[in-house]
Amino acid sequence: MHRISFLHQLYHNYQSDNSFNQQPQGLYQPINYIMDLGGKRMRPLLVLLGYDMFGDTIEKALPVAHAVELFHNFTLMHDDIMDQAPLRRGKVTVHERYGVNTAILSGDVMLIHACQYLLRLNDPVKVPAMVEVFNRVAIEVCEGQQYDMDFEQRQDVTIDEYLQMIELKTAALLGGALQLGAMAAGAPQSDVEHLIHFGRQIGVAFQLQDDILDAFGDPSKFGKKVGGDIIQNKKTFLLLKAQMLADTATRATLQQLLDNASMPEEQKVAEVVEIFKQLNIPELASAEKARFEKLAFDSLEAVEVAPDKKQALVDLTLQLMGREH
Amino acid sequence: MHRISFLHQLYHNYQSDNSFNQQPQGLYQPINYIMDLGGKRMRPLLVLLGYDMFGDTIEKALPVAHAVELFHNFTLMHDDIMDQAPLRRGKVTVHERYGVNTAILSGDVMLIHACQYLLRLNDPVKVPAMVEVFNRVAIEVCEGQQYDMDFEQRQDVTIDEYLQMIELKTAALLGGALQLGAMAAGAPQSDVEHLIHFGRQIGVAFQLQDDILDAFGDPSKFGKKVGGDIIQNKKTFLLLKAQMLADTATRATLQQLLDNASMPEEQKVAEVVEIFKQLNIPELASAEKARFEKLAFDSLEAVEVAPDKKQALVDLTLQLMGREH
Repeated sequence: MHRISFLHQLYHNYQSDNSFNQQPQGLYQPINYIMDLGGKRMRPLLVLLGYDMFGDTIEKALPVAHAVELFHNFTLMHDDIMDQAPLRRGKVTVHERYGVNTAILSGDVMLIHACQYLLRLNDPVKVPAMVEVFNRVAIEVCEGQQYDMDFEQRQDVTIDEYLQMIELKTAALLGGALQLGAMAAGAPQSDVEHLIHFGRQIGVAFQLQDDILDAFGDPSKFGKKVGGDIIQNKKTFLLLKAQMLADTATRATLQQLLDNASMPEEQKVAEVVEIFKQLNIPELASAEKARFEKLAFDSLEAVEVAPDKKQALVDLTLQLMGREH
Repeated sequence: MHRISFLHQLYHNYQSDNSFNQQPQGLYQPINYIMDLGGKRMRPLLVLLGYDMFGDTIEKALPVAHAVELFHNFTLMHDDIMDQAPLRRGKVTVHERYGVNTAILSGDVMLIHACQYLLRLNDPVKVPAMVEVFNRVAIEVCEGQQYDMDFEQRQDVTIDEYLQMIELKTAALLGGALQLGAMAAGAPQSDVEHLIHFGRQIGVAFQLQDDILDAFGDPSKFGKKVGGDIIQNKKTFLLLKAQMLADTATRATLQQLLDNASMPEEQKVAEVVEIFKQLNIPELASAEKARFEKLAFDSLEAVEVAPDKKQALVDLTLQLMGREH
């Protein structure tokens, strides 16, 4: 874990040194606010780890890592408006604290500054292709968010559509982070491709794990309120799979629970969880998660660098999967 | 005017051919909607004219022109949310038609696609510097919008601050459009600098003209409702100058008009306009506009290309200033 802790600290220092001090304050203060809320810094770490496998002088990759983290926090700022979320990492969201208009505009300028940091790699040969990748992934993230919102209005979402949506909304950026790190280090194209696949598959696995923990997690360890997805009728893997496998009577019961706005939240969560258990959903979701993990690690295996070069990325992944060792 | 009409048609065709047909439709339809509302296409024309002075094969500059127009329409989409504007170019605004969440997200992806079009210039040597310029100008536009919103809450805005705000919010992008066109054509740095100055000064002149027309324009020719700025208590050059020059009694009368929410709009406009006239504000504003026009044309004069190469830009400027000849 030593290398990860080192990279985490390195990024933390860079992020602190690069807080926005310019005017107008009303535009930049909300950016510093959301960036200082912390988080696991998974995406900048993936950039640094992607670089670390192929390059020396890790400091060169810091602006790229920062570009990706700024972009990620821009999406959080705007998604929180769209979701009318009151809290983010236990603190008041930007739009609640500074107003919706500020959250829109600060998010906009944050996205532009993210791209600007990418240019600080200061490598005219690599930069055009990297900006293209950054934009392509950013577009995918927006498209994923749109599908997610579309799904709220639809009653016929399939599991394949759900998996494609989370690949766009969540996993594409993890693949993109590794890709940009590796590109900055001048990695061979074939290895870059393997890392993209690793990031995208492991990203889907992370999201499936999130879906599982939301319903079955230990309330003392899970960061968010257990049952939040169920309360919001979110079309997660668990719910879609349950609707697919349930017999007619159970499907009707499930639908009644979703439609019942007056039932106490805890009761709703308990009854939906009970149906999930009856239908073996936790096991099926875990198996699906394991399938994506396997695909991810097969891709990582194919990256042609010595195993010790990959160890930090393996460690980080297991840590995020809650299987630290 | 022949060259301008030709370039206008050329851009129009490119824009039509590049409408967004991809999925998810809910994300891309609002972009096509706002892009198809039309407008003068001033910014893409400036890109093409900047290129035209130094380059051949004008078609090469089309993706750059489109990048700038997409960016401009992204700002309109988000600004309209912030201003709660019901109409844009006589049609329902995006957030009114498709909802605020869609207007946020479609605007976001539009900004990213704008940058992506810049890369289609497909010139690895020029592109990094051009992306840097594009981002820098985009940041200025956001900063200008923030200052504009800040000014609504402030009672001590100076005329210098106002001029700086409109330079950021409006004029920087006109300078940037010419700059990007000239850079794409490989213009010498000194000429690029002169064109930036031209665009920024003429942009301020355009905005001052807008301020004047809002209060004193011919309702049959002015596209917007005459007196709109006055009704909204907008701190335009006219109002700031009037507050500066008025004696104590007149300043108090003016303030009462601004604070009076129950007075009929037409009466308020008429009385404020009367005060402006008494204080010679129309003449002073026209003189200020002329000062910026002069600065602009001095910069254009300094661009080292044959006068006939500059003629189309001169024509466009005079046309936009309402002095077509």
